[in-house]
Amino acid sequence: MAAAIRLARWHQGRTGSNPSVATLIVREINDEPVIVGRGVTAVGGRPHAEPQALAEAGDLARGATAYVTLEPCAHHGRTPPCAEALVSAGVSRVVAAASDPDDRVSGRGYQILRDARIEVEENVLAEEAARDLAGYLTRRMKNRVHVTLKLALSRNGKIGRRDGGQVLITGEVSNRQVHALRAQADVILIGIGTALNDDPSLTCRIEGLEDRSPIRLVLDTQLKLPVASKLVRTAREVPLWIATSAAQDHPARAGLAAAGADFIACETHDGQIALPELLEDLAARGLSSVLVEGGEQVAEAFLAEGLVDRLILLTGQIDIEGDAVDAPFAPGIVPPGFRKTSSMTFGADHMDEFERL
Amino acid sequence: MAAAIRLARWHQGRTGSNPSVATLIVREINDEPVIVGRGVTAVGGRPHAEPQALAEAGDLARGATAYVTLEPCAHHGRTPPCAEALVSAGVSRVVAAASDPDDRVSGRGYQILRDARIEVEENVLAEEAARDLAGYLTRRMKNRVHVTLKLALSRNGKIGRRDGGQVLITGEVSNRQVHALRAQADVILIGIGTALNDDPSLTCRIEGLEDRSPIRLVLDTQLKLPVASKLVRTAREVPLWIATSAAQDHPARAGLAAAGADFIACETHDGQIALPELLEDLAARGLSSVLVEGGEQVAEAFLAEGLVDRLILLTGQIDIEGDAVDAPFAPGIVPPGFRKTSSMTFGADHMDEFERL
Repeated sequence: MAAAIRLARWHQGRTGSNPSVATLIVREINDEPVIVGRGVTAVGGRPHAEPQALAEAGDLARGATAYVTLEPCAHHGRTPPCAEALVSAGVSRVVAAASDPDDRVSGRGYQILRDARIEVEENVLAEEAARDLAGYLTRRMKNRVHVTLKLALSRNGKIGRRDGGQVLITGEVSNRQVHALRAQADVILIGIGTALNDDPSLTCRIEGLEDRSPIRLVLDTQLKLPVASKLVRTAREVPLWIATSAAQDHPARAGLAAAGADFIACETHDGQIALPELLEDLAARGLSSVLVEGGEQVAEAFLAEGLVDRLILLTGQIDIEGDAVDAPFAPGIVPPGFRKTSSMTFGADHMDEFERL
Repeated sequence: MAAAIRLARWHQGRTGSNPSVATLIVREINDEPVIVGRGVTAVGGRPHAEPQALAEAGDLARGATAYVTLEPCAHHGRTPPCAEALVSAGVSRVVAAASDPDDRVSGRGYQILRDARIEVEENVLAEEAARDLAGYLTRRMKNRVHVTLKLALSRNGKIGRRDGGQVLITGEVSNRQVHALRAQADVILIGIGTALNDDPSLTCRIEGLEDRSPIRLVLDTQLKLPVASKLVRTAREVPLWIATSAAQDHPARAGLAAAGADFIACETHDGQIALPELLEDLAARGLSSVLVEGGEQVAEAFLAEGLVDRLILLTGQIDIEGDAVDAPFAPGIVPPGFRKTSSMTFGADHMDEFERL
């Protein structure tokens, strides 16, 4: 199952609104377990993993064990559901990690297998598989996208300067790590403050992942984003969405639209974008995961509303002196409401990952 | 309610993944019913109709009747659900047309109102409202987009020439009607045959609807769509999606992608795109309605699979002679499995509309 979970990671973030799932078909040959078929959800989301693994296994699937990282689908389209494909291929045992909360599948995938007298073992390494499927599971269970908040902290617990100048808190290795995080997300989100201060492009250009271009989303109630910003100037290459409550006839709309930006109509609450509704609307568009990259106000709003599912704290070795902005958390402690799931060192920088309790 | 349904049509096709819904607040003033507040789902999908109507009505909402074309929403985000907004405003009676199949609303919207001792009348002109909400209702109930098939028939029951040349079957008025149909759809779909033969642009340019640009979708298993086609050349202005089963490393991909086309990964069945799965994937992206514009093979595939929810037959006054393609239906009869819902005349042309039984 661990091998299947690793295989599923190949296409993570590249399978559209379908989750990236893997299947391994294993059978004993001369008393040794041998992988005779492997499949991972294709880029774009179809075909699913199971038929690909079964096709590779061919007749060897008969009597074999299938390892699947998610409950096989149970609903009929033009192609048979994966649970039935496993039955037809004659596998004798299915070992599954996560269960599918989709109401067209939930439990029914397993039921189809059991009805055909296939032995089913559920919940094997379920937590590990669920972590990789977090976007899909959050969308199905909570009707909203999964949120990862990334914060870079200086050694003295600051996240930036109050005068707005950009500070490079972390080194090159951890910056590459941030690019990899971006590549896994469907959407990268920042506030208009960060967009104006830093003029970032937020594109993701790392070797082997050039075709990954998460949507860039700016929270901009009043449409202050300049047409000359890097975000807008690259809107024809990588999608740029602006979440706004500005009226349809707001004078800035036409220029932004002509440059290729799209708009998401938002409700406001106390003058700020209503975040739960926005996350729900993103899920309704088939998106699963958002990486929140700042700034301070946006980070605090997501934390205050309990909308951060995963928190990534990068701690660098520099101190920010003078009129600096405090991080919402002191470096080195586990933020309340979270538990630590991993900790890594990149050169002089530390990266701690936390999950919401 | 009829007035509310007409108001809801204002923003049809322009409210993203939310349905276009209307609310009218009516109260007796000097023994006369007076509309004191009106609201329609904003372009983009938020805010919803109810809070807008209540804001316009102000204190006059107290004791008034609210007419809503869809059950008010019941789920909490940062802003209160519309059912609670109606309660807080003190309306004494709610008259509703369609019920909401969304499992976060279904029946709960009405329950919140009844729990607050508000009189609720359901199903008033429900069928008329449901027809306008067909896209949203199909997506929620069948997990797929709603399909309208448009066919233009010559007087002698042909839909085109076998040699592929484009024939103008109908006159200018009905062609404008087709543009209006396009403007209401989220997606316009054609097969690669039609794309190659007719080289259409499928943009929708009619006065007052310039900002409506449905996604153009081409079924193209083998990526034969030329980069020089009108569809591809306009891909930076109006979205162009290609539904394909071609491999990720297919040589045509890079050129199409560079021109701005997007791809939907599809499964195939007997060498053709698996349509139910495609319609499901479009719904998963938050889209609600597809207008199928041809050609013959695509029309027949949708009909054969029982995937046509609404059928629009335009009949012109010319005959197509020679090696012509027969329509799947003779002109003048009700196609089996459908019932006629309307019939109109535009100059010399007839437009008949049918709904699936």
